Amino acid sequence: MDKNQAVIQELTSILERKGVSSEEIEGMVAIVHPVDFAFILEDLSAEEKIRVFRLLDLETAAAVLAELDEDSTREVVNGLGREEVRKVIGAMSSDDAAATVRMLAEDMGRDAALDLLQRRQKDQVKELLRYGEETAGALMTTNCVSVRLDATAAEGLKTLQGAVQANTVVYVYVVDAAGVLRGVLSIRSLLRAAAETGISEIMKAEPITVPPEMDQEEVARIVKRYSLEAVPVTDPQGKLLGVVTAEAIMDILEQEAGEDLLKMAGAGGVNVFADPVVKRVLLRIPWLIPPLLGGLFVGKLQHTFAELRALEFVSLVLFIPVMMGTAGNVAVQSSTLIVRGLATGEIKIGRIASILYGELRVGALIGLVCGALIGASGLLFVRDAHIGLVVGASMFTAITAAAVNGTAFPLLLHRLKQDPAISAGPFITALNDITATLIYMGVSFGLLRVMR
Amino acid sequence: MDKNQAVIQELTSILERKGVSSEEIEGMVAIVHPVDFAFILEDLSAEEKIRVFRLLDLETAAAVLAELDEDSTREVVNGLGREEVRKVIGAMSSDDAAATVRMLAEDMGRDAALDLLQRRQKDQVKELLRYGEETAGALMTTNCVSVRLDATAAEGLKTLQGAVQANTVVYVYVVDAAGVLRGVLSIRSLLRAAAETGISEIMKAEPITVPPEMDQEEVARIVKRYSLEAVPVTDPQGKLLGVVTAEAIMDILEQEAGEDLLKMAGAGGVNVFADPVVKRVLLRIPWLIPPLLGGLFVGKLQHTFAELRALEFVSLVLFIPVMMGTAGNVAVQSSTLIVRGLATGEIKIGRIASILYGELRVGALIGLVCGALIGASGLLFVRDAHIGLVVGASMFTAITAAAVNGTAFPLLLHRLKQDPAISAGPFITALNDITATLIYMGVSFGLLRVMR
Repeated sequence: MDKNQAVIQELTSILERKGVSSEEIEGMVAIVHPVDFAFILEDLSAEEKIRVFRLLDLETAAAVLAELDEDSTREVVNGLGREEVRKVIGAMSSDDAAATVRMLAEDMGRDAALDLLQRRQKDQVKELLRYGEETAGALMTTNCVSVRLDATAAEGLKTLQGAVQANTVVYVYVVDAAGVLRGVLSIRSLLRAAAETGISEIMKAEPITVPPEMDQEEVARIVKRYSLEAVPVTDPQGKLLGVVTAEAIMDILEQEAGEDLLKMAGAGGVNVFADPVVKRVLLRIPWLIPPLLGGLFVGKLQHTFAELRALEFVSLVLFIPVMMGTAGNVAVQSSTLIVRGLATGEIKIGRIASILYGELRVGALIGLVCGALIGASGLLFVRDAHIGLVVGASMFTAITAAAVNGTAFPLLLHRLKQDPAISAGPFITALNDITATLIYMGVSFGLLRVMR
Repeated sequence: MDKNQAVIQELTSILERKGVSSEEIEGMVAIVHPVDFAFILEDLSAEEKIRVFRLLDLETAAAVLAELDEDSTREVVNGLGREEVRKVIGAMSSDDAAATVRMLAEDMGRDAALDLLQRRQKDQVKELLRYGEETAGALMTTNCVSVRLDATAAEGLKTLQGAVQANTVVYVYVVDAAGVLRGVLSIRSLLRAAAETGISEIMKAEPITVPPEMDQEEVARIVKRYSLEAVPVTDPQGKLLGVVTAEAIMDILEQEAGEDLLKMAGAGGVNVFADPVVKRVLLRIPWLIPPLLGGLFVGKLQHTFAELRALEFVSLVLFIPVMMGTAGNVAVQSSTLIVRGLATGEIKIGRIASILYGELRVGALIGLVCGALIGASGLLFVRDAHIGLVVGASMFTAITAAAVNGTAFPLLLHRLKQDPAISAGPFITALNDITATLIYMGVSFGLLRVMR
């Protein structure tokens, strides 16, 4: 990638120079991938983007536009004339065109965005836009190769050779007269069969399929689970509608895992690089309010104890932050492991009891270690064996409870058909702060009273 | 998937019955994918696994063994005779065999694991094992189709038809006499070319390649970035070694994003479903110690303030949990957004200043809202306008600082070539607790002194 980086840097400096010529652009197009070209363009001003775009040949312009981010796409579409845009989008495959229209529709409305298409393309794209965002239907490409059930291998090969769209093809799909998907075969089995062999003899019957409404996360899980390179999308009658490729799935897999990460941090849906500040604030504040109320409640608890037993409290206050912090971290560890296990499917139904028991033991052991450490430092700081003992004991209890909380809460959310990632982060912390404070104060004061 | 679930459940009950016959197994093999078969097997006892395994035909046994989890693989290998194992592994492709050997080597040692291979396979697998785990070399399959630069399209097709291994093939690679990769072409362009066309005329020259030592995460990023279906692996001389497919990449992408999630929670490397309790504890405790020390330090700070000004402290203690909690959550939000942006490549060099400035403004706005809320509740709880004012003001400052901390810390780690995910979670919380407490105590006591 170093060579590539160097090329990109050189090209950036060429593009940033005013008055770059169309020959120079042609030279660049020959050696740079459209993805890199789009990446470089994104950093230029709107006028520069338009200027460069007009120097590109149609095919390259379409490939680059398909790769641009949302803001840049908008700038280019607004800057070029409507007829120019129509030509460029016309050179895209139907799924790329649909993605661009979907992006533009957010701003200019669906109808205005569809008006940027040539008539022929409009119907195809409308068809694709019928399916909700993040579904198999929105993700599929209709550029797949299908042959009839009664064809021979030679006819199948001919169909394959004649397929117009340039997408890479991995499988050939076999349909009956009604368009119902009946089987699938790899190009290599087609190549290796004798010319007169019937397609139905070499195909694999009953392929795995998905409905167009299926959530993309579920589609990704199926493609990954069965190591498919593409999965066909069929309607309720079994008619072949299109294909979701492994390539499309790659984006989804990373995106969904990333969404879990952001949700757990209470920052789901935030795009730090594109959204305006106020929108980012409005998206983040709701996740702060419930833990904020929890925090106030915890404060009220501590305040009550402080008023009740001011003298002892001054000793015990030393260990409140470490107790809350450590218990909180243990709870977050546990809940993250559960969220992850649920996402990857590693947590199987029927194993929940053993998972809870396992985490209980882990929590107790961590509690033992941390309780001993903190009890010892209690001796060190306060020079009072009683304080050291009660602080250690309550820490052990609080950490064990934290591990159980952190495990049970996301499992409960999952059972209630809620997304465990959404609430496992900030909420688990708030829940845990309350439990930990109650345990700490209760156990400490209780034990101190018994001992003194 | 519902139909599939029902089938799986039925089969599970058949398998769990003692004395299942080889005809019943054959019937199952015909309708169940090896992945599902492995999934069902994993829940059976070791003896049951062996019994069922012996009823499978060789091809199915190999496919199922390749899908089994670590524990089950070990049970099956230990339960079957050495010759039986050698036959089953012999029916695997070289990359599956290498993965199995890599898994078994952890337990029985490399040499004993290699001894489970037939001579022919041993050399191939040894070759694959040369490369470190999680590199392109460990991930690649050597079963790719290559043709010579001076071949014709007809000869290329023939090579393709004769390729022995059953893996799906997407591209044909073009090499010169020295085995150096010179170009790539899709099967479809091969099919569409006239028989006598030279391969070099229809190939795409200078394909994107990766070295065998490249980290799998980087490989995944390249495959995804350029929407490839496979990327060739070449040695320093440009010789073609193998191919990493999009299918292999899918696992990596999800795995790496999941690893980030676990690392941020201070639970990286923990396998809650397979590791014994003590190992899980030992993996988790190191991430708890630094924040634990931080927490003790914060406690010492609060303790000092409590001793100095016991009366005022009793009022202010009420707001310590909410202040630390909210500032902590804001810092985690910010750092997660940054970790994610770095992982997806959305954060570009040169934009760091604007990202910091943006998060500063977001933090200030959130601080304003939360400061006002908490100031108001200060009035409500303590009925003291001064307390409300100082608490609100210090909260605003602490939250703004938290957003800056949360942004700057992972960026700094990234700049120092450290993994930002590793330390952004528990560490950012500890760092932030210290900053927030200092700010809260400093601002509150300072302002109170001025006002009273």
